[in-house]
Amino acid sequence: MIIDCHGHYTTAPAAHTAWREEQVAAWQAGTTPPPYPSISDDEIRETIESSQLRLMDARGVDLTVFSPRASAMAHHVGDAAVSLEWARRCNDLVHRVTTLFPDRFVGVAQLPQSPGAPVEGSVAELRRCVEELGFVVCNLNPDPGGGYFQHPPLTDAYWFPIYEAMCELEVPAMIHVSGSCNPAMHATGGYYLAADTVAFMQLLQGDLFSRFPNLRLIIPHGGGAVPYHWGRYRGLADMLKQPDIETHLMNNVFFDTCVYHQPGIALLADVIENKNILFGSEMVGAVRGIDPQTGHYFDDTKRYIDALDISDHEKHMIFEGNARRVYPRLDAILKERGL
Amino acid sequence: MIIDCHGHYTTAPAAHTAWREEQVAAWQAGTTPPPYPSISDDEIRETIESSQLRLMDARGVDLTVFSPRASAMAHHVGDAAVSLEWARRCNDLVHRVTTLFPDRFVGVAQLPQSPGAPVEGSVAELRRCVEELGFVVCNLNPDPGGGYFQHPPLTDAYWFPIYEAMCELEVPAMIHVSGSCNPAMHATGGYYLAADTVAFMQLLQGDLFSRFPNLRLIIPHGGGAVPYHWGRYRGLADMLKQPDIETHLMNNVFFDTCVYHQPGIALLADVIENKNILFGSEMVGAVRGIDPQTGHYFDDTKRYIDALDISDHEKHMIFEGNARRVYPRLDAILKERGL
Repeated sequence: MIIDCHGHYTTAPAAHTAWREEQVAAWQAGTTPPPYPSISDDEIRETIESSQLRLMDARGVDLTVFSPRASAMAHHVGDAAVSLEWARRCNDLVHRVTTLFPDRFVGVAQLPQSPGAPVEGSVAELRRCVEELGFVVCNLNPDPGGGYFQHPPLTDAYWFPIYEAMCELEVPAMIHVSGSCNPAMHATGGYYLAADTVAFMQLLQGDLFSRFPNLRLIIPHGGGAVPYHWGRYRGLADMLKQPDIETHLMNNVFFDTCVYHQPGIALLADVIENKNILFGSEMVGAVRGIDPQTGHYFDDTKRYIDALDISDHEKHMIFEGNARRVYPRLDAILKERGL
Repeated sequence: MIIDCHGHYTTAPAAHTAWREEQVAAWQAGTTPPPYPSISDDEIRETIESSQLRLMDARGVDLTVFSPRASAMAHHVGDAAVSLEWARRCNDLVHRVTTLFPDRFVGVAQLPQSPGAPVEGSVAELRRCVEELGFVVCNLNPDPGGGYFQHPPLTDAYWFPIYEAMCELEVPAMIHVSGSCNPAMHATGGYYLAADTVAFMQLLQGDLFSRFPNLRLIIPHGGGAVPYHWGRYRGLADMLKQPDIETHLMNNVFFDTCVYHQPGIALLADVIENKNILFGSEMVGAVRGIDPQTGHYFDDTKRYIDALDISDHEKHMIFEGNARRVYPRLDAILKERGL
């Protein structure tokens, strides 16, 4: 079974996206946004079948852990009330996808974070998504300000309320920033990878998993710069008199495979223990084109893993086994189905 | 000949470092700093011979392109006048090193940048360093605010005055941030790699080298996350309808080899054309320890290049040839010496 841990609903119905613009305009004008539009099941089916599902089928992906579009979370826009309303709409929409295609999608919660707002405000929506909508993980934005890194490190007590809820609910988080409002910071080419890298170093400096031994965090985009600089991190752990990374972090931190060329994936699988690698593609997403060097889509990351010189068991763990361990609620859903 | 393009004077005499503290304290108190201390040649010799030069000899490095300590540039501290005074002191100190050990060190200019201050303020000091002190390159800080990324992208006209001076003087810049004043951003483990990555994406989005075809920029620390995510960048160039990276950027952008393990260096040399790779170690610097997996220093990056399965000619280019091309003033110095 092939589980893609990193898919975004980037082809959401136009009415959904248009409503968001109206919501933001209303907030800016100090007025009330229009009611959320009615969107038919057929519209949702169409947006899924023509893109995400078509690509999943073409590439042999059975199930996608599916979230609202990450760059559109835009926690830096509006205030906490705007973010809450938007998160609920996005999560409800993803829930409809998971209801229409229950065998192919499980949901990821967008949290209603807002710059400087206490993260407590996200706990209720996380709980709703997990307990009522059947979601198995959330996206936690380490920089809800949108590109200026003005929030406390992930090891700070600021974040503890959401970690406590995650541990109680048995859901992990993918540490995923949203769009950038910083003109110096391109979202998918600069900000995402910078934030991934910075997040890992925050964890290395701290001692978060002593306090939350069951907390599990996925750092997307192949862990940012981290595997490429694994020697630097091993050395820094030593210099900072921290325990070695394997025992300090790697029971709780996982990297996905959203790295869009064979040499990158080869390095990832070479340097990082395969138990810490989750298959992901980030599609339909950051990079949509076909690599002229291979003739295949850049983000068809399954091909890169298929081509690795590792055992079938290791591939199975990257494609399925690790995900079932890291997302216990996903494992429970699959077991219920006899899978 | 082995040329290390990335060395910092991290073992500067204690009196120099203590004076900086007094300078900052005076600025905070609104008073005048004490006079800069007298530092003897013997003191400088001692700090170099006992560390940088000892390590260069042990590792077979002939010449280091040597800059003031990057993390101590601290452009975010004080104001433009404080930065100017500090940059001049640091550059003069490095100049003394290059005078005491002319065969082993050439100088890199620290620029007197200051948050939000026009970069014109750095041109005179660059000119002094190049024309009077014989320096061959400068360190340009893309985020003089120290970790909040509040400055315009490197493609913005804000930066053009320093680029014009660099082109006129025929000196490249290493794009190198300084210490972080952001508690969420560890300098050498988060900030450096994030800034490297963000800088490359800024260049990819823009069209800087059409305007400055002779401008050359070195992105340190192996290019941050870039080579590991080379497929992402090739794909983003395509999505953004930019020319392919090789023609758009890679006549002007270079990566060093400050990547502290063999798999990382192997990926760098595999993915990036070797004409764009400059040998560098960042020593005595970010990671000082010995890798228990190899028994050698993490930052003994020469070993990793020696171990690559590439031709002797390619190694020669990485160790010497590319540096002489990218730093024409260094080439001229060496030619004058019959090298």
